[in-house]
Amino acid sequence: MSALRFPDLPPSEPQGADLLAQERSRTTFSVHDLSNYIYGEEYLERQEKFLGLIENEPAFDKSNRYFLGRTERFAGALKKDYALVKLAQQEKWNPEEFQQADILIDEPGPFGLHRGMFMPTLVSQGTDEQHELFLKPALRYEVIGCYAQTEIGHGSNVQGIETTATYIPETNEFELHTPYLTACKWWIGGLGKAANHAVVMARLISNGKDYGPHALCVPIRSMEDHTLLPGVMAGDIGPKFGYNTTDNGCMWFDHYRVPHVSLLAKYSSVKPGSGEYIKPPNSKLSYGTMVLIRASLVGYARIGLAKAATIATRYSAIRRQFVDKDQPKKMGKETIETPVLDYSMQQYRLFPIIAAAYACHFTSKEMMRLYYLNIKNMAAGNFSLLADVHASSSGLKSLTTTMAAASIEECRRACGGHGFSSFSGLPLLLQDYAPNVTWEGDNYMITQQTGRYLFKSFRDLVAKRASGKFSASQITNPTLAYLNTYLDNPDLKCPATTPAQFHNPEIQLAAYGHRAAHMIAEIVHGLDVEKRSWNSMLVEIYNASVAHCQLILVQNFILGIRGDMPQPEGVTATPLSPAAKEALTDLSDLFALHQIHKQPGEFLTSGYIEAKHVSMMGKAIMDVMDKKIRPNAVGFVDAFAFPDYYLNSALGRFDGKVYEAYTEMATREPINQTEVIEGYEQYIKPFTNPKGLKGKSIQARL
Amino acid sequence: MSALRFPDLPPSEPQGADLLAQERSRTTFSVHDLSNYIYGEEYLERQEKFLGLIENEPAFDKSNRYFLGRTERFAGALKKDYALVKLAQQEKWNPEEFQQADILIDEPGPFGLHRGMFMPTLVSQGTDEQHELFLKPALRYEVIGCYAQTEIGHGSNVQGIETTATYIPETNEFELHTPYLTACKWWIGGLGKAANHAVVMARLISNGKDYGPHALCVPIRSMEDHTLLPGVMAGDIGPKFGYNTTDNGCMWFDHYRVPHVSLLAKYSSVKPGSGEYIKPPNSKLSYGTMVLIRASLVGYARIGLAKAATIATRYSAIRRQFVDKDQPKKMGKETIETPVLDYSMQQYRLFPIIAAAYACHFTSKEMMRLYYLNIKNMAAGNFSLLADVHASSSGLKSLTTTMAAASIEECRRACGGHGFSSFSGLPLLLQDYAPNVTWEGDNYMITQQTGRYLFKSFRDLVAKRASGKFSASQITNPTLAYLNTYLDNPDLKCPATTPAQFHNPEIQLAAYGHRAAHMIAEIVHGLDVEKRSWNSMLVEIYNASVAHCQLILVQNFILGIRGDMPQPEGVTATPLSPAAKEALTDLSDLFALHQIHKQPGEFLTSGYIEAKHVSMMGKAIMDVMDKKIRPNAVGFVDAFAFPDYYLNSALGRFDGKVYEAYTEMATREPINQTEVIEGYEQYIKPFTNPKGLKGKSIQARL
Repeated sequence: MSALRFPDLPPSEPQGADLLAQERSRTTFSVHDLSNYIYGEEYLERQEKFLGLIENEPAFDKSNRYFLGRTERFAGALKKDYALVKLAQQEKWNPEEFQQADILIDEPGPFGLHRGMFMPTLVSQGTDEQHELFLKPALRYEVIGCYAQTEIGHGSNVQGIETTATYIPETNEFELHTPYLTACKWWIGGLGKAANHAVVMARLISNGKDYGPHALCVPIRSMEDHTLLPGVMAGDIGPKFGYNTTDNGCMWFDHYRVPHVSLLAKYSSVKPGSGEYIKPPNSKLSYGTMVLIRASLVGYARIGLAKAATIATRYSAIRRQFVDKDQPKKMGKETIETPVLDYSMQQYRLFPIIAAAYACHFTSKEMMRLYYLNIKNMAAGNFSLLADVHASSSGLKSLTTTMAAASIEECRRACGGHGFSSFSGLPLLLQDYAPNVTWEGDNYMITQQTGRYLFKSFRDLVAKRASGKFSASQITNPTLAYLNTYLDNPDLKCPATTPAQFHNPEIQLAAYGHRAAHMIAEIVHGLDVEKRSWNSMLVEIYNASVAHCQLILVQNFILGIRGDMPQPEGVTATPLSPAAKEALTDLSDLFALHQIHKQPGEFLTSGYIEAKHVSMMGKAIMDVMDKKIRPNAVGFVDAFAFPDYYLNSALGRFDGKVYEAYTEMATREPINQTEVIEGYEQYIKPFTNPKGLKGKSIQARL
Repeated sequence: MSALRFPDLPPSEPQGADLLAQERSRTTFSVHDLSNYIYGEEYLERQEKFLGLIENEPAFDKSNRYFLGRTERFAGALKKDYALVKLAQQEKWNPEEFQQADILIDEPGPFGLHRGMFMPTLVSQGTDEQHELFLKPALRYEVIGCYAQTEIGHGSNVQGIETTATYIPETNEFELHTPYLTACKWWIGGLGKAANHAVVMARLISNGKDYGPHALCVPIRSMEDHTLLPGVMAGDIGPKFGYNTTDNGCMWFDHYRVPHVSLLAKYSSVKPGSGEYIKPPNSKLSYGTMVLIRASLVGYARIGLAKAATIATRYSAIRRQFVDKDQPKKMGKETIETPVLDYSMQQYRLFPIIAAAYACHFTSKEMMRLYYLNIKNMAAGNFSLLADVHASSSGLKSLTTTMAAASIEECRRACGGHGFSSFSGLPLLLQDYAPNVTWEGDNYMITQQTGRYLFKSFRDLVAKRASGKFSASQITNPTLAYLNTYLDNPDLKCPATTPAQFHNPEIQLAAYGHRAAHMIAEIVHGLDVEKRSWNSMLVEIYNASVAHCQLILVQNFILGIRGDMPQPEGVTATPLSPAAKEALTDLSDLFALHQIHKQPGEFLTSGYIEAKHVSMMGKAIMDVMDKKIRPNAVGFVDAFAFPDYYLNSALGRFDGKVYEAYTEMATREPINQTEVIEGYEQYIKPFTNPKGLKGKSIQARL
């Protein structure tokens, strides 16, 4: 039993539960309808069912999560991953159902990359024989794999990796070898302790020629007893900022021989005996997977944003501080301290984050639709969508994950001191979310891919327009559309003369489109006319990618609410109730205008927006936040439908019993289990009672 | 012994040590001179001496720091704090020397607030009798104290605290009581487990009247055996984002009686028997301490910035990625991948952080000078400096700690994936630095104090100018000076027509001054003419404080390098060598211009800067970064003179042996101590070898 107990006293009035009830009574739309619109009824029903299966199962218990050190947390995650696979097998979950349960449990574990990277690579790059050999046992978790690409000295530049796989014609084997310390595999999720197989990216060398990075699937640990196989050394890379429940690992090879069948040979291979290299068909098909992963990260950004916003918004409705003298808050007859959610600064910090979560919802939906459409087109030989989708997915991955990471930290700080407590749930969220800004393409680096596409599109369009044979029918995507509008009139000015006019989505879209096009035009001028080097323009290129992708988010938000977004084939859109539509329009306005108001620089230098507009927008924002969004704030986050089990936060509880939950959690802190700390005799008593005095004599001295 | 070992192979060429040597050979100034200029020779000599005392003492060992869970880390911190006090007693350190050693060890411990808040409060608010009773034993660590102000339901608004201290005339005692759960003391550093006394802020009630918060010094744990005293319940508040080596605690009182002498009575008191309240003299003296603490946080921001910049800059000189096709990097005859520090984006991310560290150096020095000058003035009845210094210290605390926290995270990300590893040193730095943005006044909230002063100054100045009796001699401080310049010509335009002209400090200062004054003028118009509420303008008020304080940083940087800053009385300025002066001028230019270039919005809307200037500044920045700062980057961070023991970073080592250190650290990871993880039999084998097959049969299956 804890040596710490709290008084049997309520928090002072008003109670959190009453405050949240009051908030909920003000919501102008049905929270249930909005949740259904986002997730679909099936998903929400399944969530209830899964909660029943998970919440009270010890392997999925979260009550000790914040107290454990890394070693214990990893041990718990291994147990959890085992139990989750057993449950999935028992319940016969499909991958989508598995993922839904996995999100609820919310703890990256040692088997995550087996599902996320190892098996998908086998599927896409393995032959039928290799599927038989590796994929089938992998589906049973008999083979547990990881994806070993990154090296300690080589990350984003895959072409720079140093591990070699040399074909040995005599034995028809490959020899994996690590030639330098910099070539050690590093960061490989699941490799540290769990995996018995790895897909290894290595430079393929045959007959003395280096064919660059290729994937091999190889055993690394004994199927009998899990010891490392001879020639393989592997282990865990140690503690990290987050993700400490995953065994990110390192590995090196000492002339490790593997059979010919290890080289994943769907696209390229080496002829047994002769060692002749068979080239892959020159295909862009591999972009597909990257687009899928980046698009799915936009969806995960939504979850991160929504989770942080839920915690901070609910808590801000309960936490009270100072009295706003111009508008004192009453509860009955009493003046109470003003809930911090009533302060315009808190609204300016939190409401755009709620809006960003909804923005990511619409764009992630659209990216998934485009991904599947593109896959279908490519199968039919039509590559027209690929470049645009690939470019957008890179930039959107960068923008939305950067935004989500910053927003989670903003929410943490917006909870004041209590956001620093692990019990808020925000520190762990921040830490586990953090790798998103680096993996799957560093957020600065990958915007160059977006940039290249944008500049090419711009140059092509300019050339077409100059050719005299240009007609609007040649505009095949939204990027060309906004570039063309800009080229039609680069000196366009915003016509708004009142704050209210900024609620017009056409003005919002024009502002974003003009700014992005202007930035692209300036960069192309810098590269092509001023002959500046690519390296010297990386900052501008990054900013142009952000501008392009902010436009996409704004556009999809507006079209999504209107119901004007195309739906995936065979899907009927869930209708949005008029009340929810109106409420989401407020968020869409805020999302579009807040970004301009907060960082107007590029909008101003593009010439479309003038100084007077920025202050008009400020007024429009303050107005919509105070009058329209404030009453719906708790409703908006309730609609994200995150159960308390998922949030695991004393501050973000649905019932508002913040202080009761928070103090209860503190009683469970391990160092509270004894009243006097273990080190007292050794490290405190020598100062405070060096002579070992007892009884009244010593107390009386003070 | 670790089950993980690494190959006895070097990293691939070029070696980190050679790259850093090459960097250091390019530095245009003497690093030693610059270090001396910043710290003074005495400080640096002492650092060497302290390192000798500390580095090899087991209590101060850092080699396990990244591996331990919270319980073990707290146990270690208690041991460390004990050993540090013993060492300080042995070495007879003064407070300044103690602080220097404490910074090197770099681990917030359970005795930190005893020194940082408990004793200073006794000094400033205690009577001679109370000094005898509490302060003297506190200096010997017989009394170990904490400062109990914050409550779980009450943070920034001290007036809102609920704990009561009721005078009981019959016994001449005070009765401390916790009336609600929200009144539990919370976040109190050192209270959780270590302290035996507390300064408690409680509402003083006498004869039924509530006199608001007052400080009492009370025993809370037995001097005999450290158990909690009857009527007091206390414990640790649990795990946090950082600061887990400190026992932030909670406490509540159940009608706990303490003697009359507990009420710290230097300024206000209660008459024994009658309970008559004796009011404090109406004094602004208490602002002094707040200014000191906030000014010292500017100095700590410098350390945070400098530490992160040192790690990221050295690593970026070693880490290579891709080949910059326009300017391929050669090492001997070989083309090598380009060091990431050569990419303009990396420079744009890191160099302004180096510059910000130097900026904070000059401003923290100036703030300390003003603090002591103001204390001296106030003692002589001159309060003329107080308001300006108080306002600036609030805004600067907010700006510099926000900047440092963001920069530490930026440096972490700029190290790519490896910034996510604890071994980089950056995650722990980020986590332990994080509370700076919240404590001593939340960074958003306290800017209102800066705002109030700025608006009052502006109104007063406008009135004086309108009175017709205004003369420039009435301008007593730099704030009034820039406001007056603006009022002289609110439509002033920047005269620069070339990028080079932006190196002119007068233009930089004019841009910052005009922007800040314009923002202040707009807010005063909003409040006084448009009659907008204070709450509705909090965003503008925050931005105005940032603008004012950025100007202060820019100004002090420029004047500091020039040698035009006033020196504290009796201090002779260390001269700056011409080479170092030139190099620092590059950083000062970058600091001033980068902030405008990155967020030009307010500079544009103020009218002084136009769109064309922003792109000119972009060119000026790229030029100074590439040609001037790049060769000195490693020299600038070397001059911060942080020993490897302090940095505790595999990436930031002075010798550049990044990969050697990093892999060595991984071998010490606890879960690497056995080759096969403990959970294998239970959680992996049931999938991978369910039938317990042995020997060749099972290996042969693949």
